[in-house]
Amino acid sequence: MAESRIARLRALLTGAGHAAMYVSDLVNLRYLTGFTGSNGALLVPLDGGPVFLTDGRYRDQAAAQLAEAGLGDVEIVITRDLMGVAAGRAPADLAAETHLIDVDSWEKLGRPEPSGRLVERLREVKDESEIAALRRACEISVEALEALLLGPLVGRTEREVARDLEWRMLELGAEDKAFDTILAAGEHSAIPHHEPTDREIRRGDLLKIDFGARVDGYHADCTRTVVMGPAADWQREIHAAVKASQAAGLDCLRPGVAVAEANTMARSTLEELGWLDAFTTGLGHGVGLQIHEDPFIGSAHPGRLASRTVLTMEPGIYLPGRGGVRIEDTVLVTDPDHGGEPDVLTDMTKELLEID
Amino acid sequence: MAESRIARLRALLTGAGHAAMYVSDLVNLRYLTGFTGSNGALLVPLDGGPVFLTDGRYRDQAAAQLAEAGLGDVEIVITRDLMGVAAGRAPADLAAETHLIDVDSWEKLGRPEPSGRLVERLREVKDESEIAALRRACEISVEALEALLLGPLVGRTEREVARDLEWRMLELGAEDKAFDTILAAGEHSAIPHHEPTDREIRRGDLLKIDFGARVDGYHADCTRTVVMGPAADWQREIHAAVKASQAAGLDCLRPGVAVAEANTMARSTLEELGWLDAFTTGLGHGVGLQIHEDPFIGSAHPGRLASRTVLTMEPGIYLPGRGGVRIEDTVLVTDPDHGGEPDVLTDMTKELLEID
Repeated sequence: MAESRIARLRALLTGAGHAAMYVSDLVNLRYLTGFTGSNGALLVPLDGGPVFLTDGRYRDQAAAQLAEAGLGDVEIVITRDLMGVAAGRAPADLAAETHLIDVDSWEKLGRPEPSGRLVERLREVKDESEIAALRRACEISVEALEALLLGPLVGRTEREVARDLEWRMLELGAEDKAFDTILAAGEHSAIPHHEPTDREIRRGDLLKIDFGARVDGYHADCTRTVVMGPAADWQREIHAAVKASQAAGLDCLRPGVAVAEANTMARSTLEELGWLDAFTTGLGHGVGLQIHEDPFIGSAHPGRLASRTVLTMEPGIYLPGRGGVRIEDTVLVTDPDHGGEPDVLTDMTKELLEID
Repeated sequence: MAESRIARLRALLTGAGHAAMYVSDLVNLRYLTGFTGSNGALLVPLDGGPVFLTDGRYRDQAAAQLAEAGLGDVEIVITRDLMGVAAGRAPADLAAETHLIDVDSWEKLGRPEPSGRLVERLREVKDESEIAALRRACEISVEALEALLLGPLVGRTEREVARDLEWRMLELGAEDKAFDTILAAGEHSAIPHHEPTDREIRRGDLLKIDFGARVDGYHADCTRTVVMGPAADWQREIHAAVKASQAAGLDCLRPGVAVAEANTMARSTLEELGWLDAFTTGLGHGVGLQIHEDPFIGSAHPGRLASRTVLTMEPGIYLPGRGGVRIEDTVLVTDPDHGGEPDVLTDMTKELLEID
């Protein structure tokens, strides 16, 4: 699998007119080679084979992980001076990730040209193994939340319940949480990225839960907002508005549709319902080896959605001091020959649940 | 507190001949301002007050966290173009963290001079609030491990037991684990940074546990190696050698002692006992807002230990295919007027425990 990823990178490099690329960002490096250590780089020349560089701590791990990824033939250089060795072996017109690499390392490499987000672009479109990991991470997330919502929740603190949810994901086979769980009760639900506190969950509260599992390095991202007991009218109203907006945006996550279109549809739905001013965050982002990665949904995105892109759709309404609602799914853009229907990986009801 | 940190940074800037510094590394930024968001920067000119920059998502959070840190008077600029605004307001001879900032951001800042590791240097010496957080993180870690070792352990997998330990730390008040727990049984204990697997823990195994809690952003780092049932002679021998080496290194963690001295003492003890070749990692590192930070213990470190530095001492013996032992403490270098005795924050027995 990694072999074909490197082949696709070579094609992009050729298109961009670079003779070689030095990849040192650890996420991009993991994508290309399977390597999960904390120090390494891959030199990919158009002429000749790629060279993997790491230090002595990772001698065995690098050999094992590259072999596992089908890169058993790649030369591995063990050195403390990754940049120096790479600079000595690279052709003159080398490119590097100037949006990620630090200035001192870049100087040691001989000030290579900016590569742009070439590997990030490759990462947008997932292969079978990546989709399987994302699907499993989303299944675990949903199963954990459904069990958590059986309760009891009232009388427990945000922090306790967040920990409970994270524990359930581990028990179900997650390797870790995808990120620190946002679990926000009552007025806290109006804070988009609230950190759980010792506030107790009370009857009448909105409870916003933004969370996910990680499987084989791949992240799930899901938000549901429920209410503790019977919903008040204003809670029903904002939940219904977010639900309509989310459905409108999600329906645009189809192959060939402009990325900006999902933004337009979700926002215009909120606008029609009179709630656009209460929506203050981004609408969605790619998910994969990072919890936030390309593509980012916004009006300025010039591209169209490709099949096998996985991204979130997460509108919300946030009313400071009162409460807020967000609904978020992780969604796979399917192949046109499967009808192009969005495949919602976080498959769970979006009705407003009233939890006793 | 943050005010005095910025004052100390100004003194270092003056010494280094810079008129201003742009701090954008998120750990250094948190240290100087208390800010915990994912995008922000602090411009610290020698002339005039500091300016904090962040984007609209963090308007309220930045105001609250800066006020909390005693920086309520600091000007906060909300912008999407942090680098552009900072470049426009900075004097000509600006310095920035070229060892951390990406090349594209550095270009937008107008290619400032390298600041060197100025904030990292400040961070080496901890104040009362930092020591309190580190002490608490270490207490929680030790209490969790002592409870875990009451067992049962045999018959459970590495992964299960690692998760159990992490759960105990959360229950005891940790905000999170400090890092992914290394829990390695039998032959796996020979791998310095082993990831827990589904291997069952068996009678006769060495069990190496490297773990820690995080409290208020501060990390604990502790390793103990125990044996499941009665120890074999070879297990006793390597454990005793590591214990002697750790004691020798730890005893050097006193104010005014050369950092390299701790390295020499721990290594020469292993050498005398005939085990130096089986020790393949670093001996220790600073701990604080990062799990690994300055100072790093090694023969090349030119400096001496200052009071209130917190660092680890962690020699080991690793015998591929058989097993390994590491013993690690997080240690506070005390004030000379307290006798300069090393204060072991991870206060737990280092005898070889035989766990039934």
